[in-house]
Amino acid sequence: MAIITLTTDFGLKDHFVGALKGSIYKELADAKVVDISHAISPFNIHECAYILKNSYKNFPKGTVHIVGVDAEPTPENQHIAVLIDGHYFISANNGVVGLIASEIMPEKVVKIDIPNPEHGSFPVLDVFVKVACHIARGGTLEVVGKTFAELKELVEDAPSVTDNGNRIVGSVAYIDNYGNVVTNIHKNFFDAYRKGRDFELNARTAAIKTIHNKYSDIVNFSIEKGKRAGAGSLLALFNSANFIELAIYKSDRHTVGGASNLLGLEYRDTITINFL
Amino acid sequence: MAIITLTTDFGLKDHFVGALKGSIYKELADAKVVDISHAISPFNIHECAYILKNSYKNFPKGTVHIVGVDAEPTPENQHIAVLIDGHYFISANNGVVGLIASEIMPEKVVKIDIPNPEHGSFPVLDVFVKVACHIARGGTLEVVGKTFAELKELVEDAPSVTDNGNRIVGSVAYIDNYGNVVTNIHKNFFDAYRKGRDFELNARTAAIKTIHNKYSDIVNFSIEKGKRAGAGSLLALFNSANFIELAIYKSDRHTVGGASNLLGLEYRDTITINFL
Amino acid sequence: MAIITLTTDFGLKDHFVGALKGSIYKELADAKVVDISHAISPFNIHECAYILKNSYKNFPKGTVHIVGVDAEPTPENQHIAVLIDGHYFISANNGVVGLIASEIMPEKVVKIDIPNPEHGSFPVLDVFVKVACHIARGGTLEVVGKTFAELKELVEDAPSVTDNGNRIVGSVAYIDNYGNVVTNIHKNFFDAYRKGRDFELNARTAAIKTIHNKYSDIVNFSIEKGKRAGAGSLLALFNSANFIELAIYKSDRHTVGGASNLLGLEYRDTITINFL
Repeated sequence: MAIITLTTDFGLKDHFVGALKGSIYKELADAKVVDISHAISPFNIHECAYILKNSYKNFPKGTVHIVGVDAEPTPENQHIAVLIDGHYFISANNGVVGLIASEIMPEKVVKIDIPNPEHGSFPVLDVFVKVACHIARGGTLEVVGKTFAELKELVEDAPSVTDNGNRIVGSVAYIDNYGNVVTNIHKNFFDAYRKGRDFELNARTAAIKTIHNKYSDIVNFSIEKGKRAGAGSLLALFNSANFIELAIYKSDRHTVGGASNLLGLEYRDTITINFL
Repeated sequence: MAIITLTTDFGLKDHFVGALKGSIYKELADAKVVDISHAISPFNIHECAYILKNSYKNFPKGTVHIVGVDAEPTPENQHIAVLIDGHYFISANNGVVGLIASEIMPEKVVKIDIPNPEHGSFPVLDVFVKVACHIARGGTLEVVGKTFAELKELVEDAPSVTDNGNRIVGSVAYIDNYGNVVTNIHKNFFDAYRKGRDFELNARTAAIKTIHNKYSDIVNFSIEKGKRAGAGSLLALFNSANFIELAIYKSDRHTVGGASNLLGLEYRDTITINFL
Repeated sequence: MAIITLTTDFGLKDHFVGALKGSIYKELADAKVVDISHAISPFNIHECAYILKNSYKNFPKGTVHIVGVDAEPTPENQHIAVLIDGHYFISANNGVVGLIASEIMPEKVVKIDIPNPEHGSFPVLDVFVKVACHIARGGTLEVVGKTFAELKELVEDAPSVTDNGNRIVGSVAYIDNYGNVVTNIHKNFFDAYRKGRDFELNARTAAIKTIHNKYSDIVNFSIEKGKRAGAGSLLALFNSANFIELAIYKSDRHTVGGASNLLGLEYRDTITINFL
């Protein structure tokens, strides 16, 4: 029995998530339903894709991922079911799956053939549950609908290289629960242009000359506490997804502040790296 | 094995929800526990009933619903277990189950016969878990306690009809995660008094002449983007529970604002519909 | 199959919790994963220990508890797996398990022998999942690593007795979802020094002469409503963990206020009890 995951902007207060889970269990009593997130900012396609990209691969192949963000079907956003990288995604064609497919070519894309009801303001419950349970039971995409060739592709902010290869201009892709600032600059991209040179990363007033491999690398444990960098120190690291990230070591964004508010960095702000 | 759902005002930070789930699994290792909501406003009976009403029916018959809001038993609020519509509710007699029973007559109401411990400030854990597991195992309400005839009934704001049937006066029943304003005017009620006439819905400064069937109905997809109604447009629709709801299409209440804060509408504010 | 619980400061928006659950299910398809809390204040060891202490005992013996707070291993905080009171804890040696062990002597402590990867900023996923699944499958701690004798002990605020046994000086240990103020004064400690005397509990401007056994004990139900103490009344009680707690009866901290903001009490503020 496949796992069914939920990624939505429903929030955790209203009845939506409970209703959805009830419907799944009514359809498939032994389903295994796992929440990825219900706190996507409403209708935020990029944020939803970011969170799904960074979590779906950890699930077993065959997992069915329901995308409950901007899910109403329209003539421009039809319901689709997509097989990518051994995982199934059920979504409106609003760009979320297109962003995931920007890294890995989908194996199969079908337009869902179950009509949304006329009074259909809750298609995740009315349509996606049926498709998800069909697939979780081992059903095929062929039964769900016909092959579809128009997966919506959104432009992602990608880093660029300027100054004859001497500068990378990237941007902020996400701010996490700690206020850590995740950039769109991947380690592979950085390494390809660095060519062993020294560099300075600039983000507003911050200038950083080292990128660590984990947070605690900012601490020199051979120096006694109080005299060494530690809680409150700014650092850059390659995070668990291998993107460059700025963080304040062991800080709470709600009290002392995180990298985002201390540096004044928000989603899409510029991050530059100058090679020396 | 029946599902056990949880609807509480415990929040998701404290140890309460974890302790509760641990106790259920200790009592019944293969229980299936599903969260409906833990974000009910503290002691808010109407909100709890609203969220339960809109979710419980999606679960399979036989599901056991624990109501963890205002659960301490008092001489005026005794512990009850109720069978309604094939679903079991375990609650203090504080009005939550009475509000659910205002639509569907309960099949059976018993007063729970397990005494709350003297040091009993956590009756959901001390009492409700035992009752829920008993029922989930297939046990009967007869064993739980004696028939009880005093289910507490709270007055619900109901819409009224004035002006010789030319006006409906309703109110705001709930504000959801999107800032959408859910009214207490059901489609059946509206249709019964409309009798095919044109109308104008008034909510503060807003005047609306159409009620849609889904959110995207506000968009005329035959007109090109930028020239048509779209993200940010105000609309009314019959929501998935068939109540009239006001929404701002694809808006985030935390950034651009939702219908609630943009129109200045709060819980229990008046909504009128004038038939022309 | 043992239960695996999660207590982290990851929050519920980001991909961390989803990624973690996916990894567990990939490793152990029929695992039973239960969230205790993902809302620990970032890097807050005392808060994490408080929430774990008050929930773990409700789970069946043999449960595996993953501690996802301040989890990066350092020369000063090594990865450990600990058996206490029949429960397994997997954590960095940052003090969380030491605080739990301050009440009950651990049966076994081992240093985890799985190296954290060099690019290892997500050790909960890279290391703890493997250890948790090993134990959940029935594996032993001996296989996980060697016995470890340096469990980090943090000083906990403990109440003191002054004035020749006539005064207890305690402090605020936690503020819960209702704004209730939980003190560090246990019923046993209070009873041992009270010796049957009258007393006055002082917390800022509040003076309280009775400690109840449940919240509704503040209400005298023989007096008619409106004339008796009720919603909004301040009370003290021995809470479900048997610590003295201050509460405002049936109040919502976000609207009328809870004991914490109404009395101006925060974490670590002083609470005194004077025996008369």
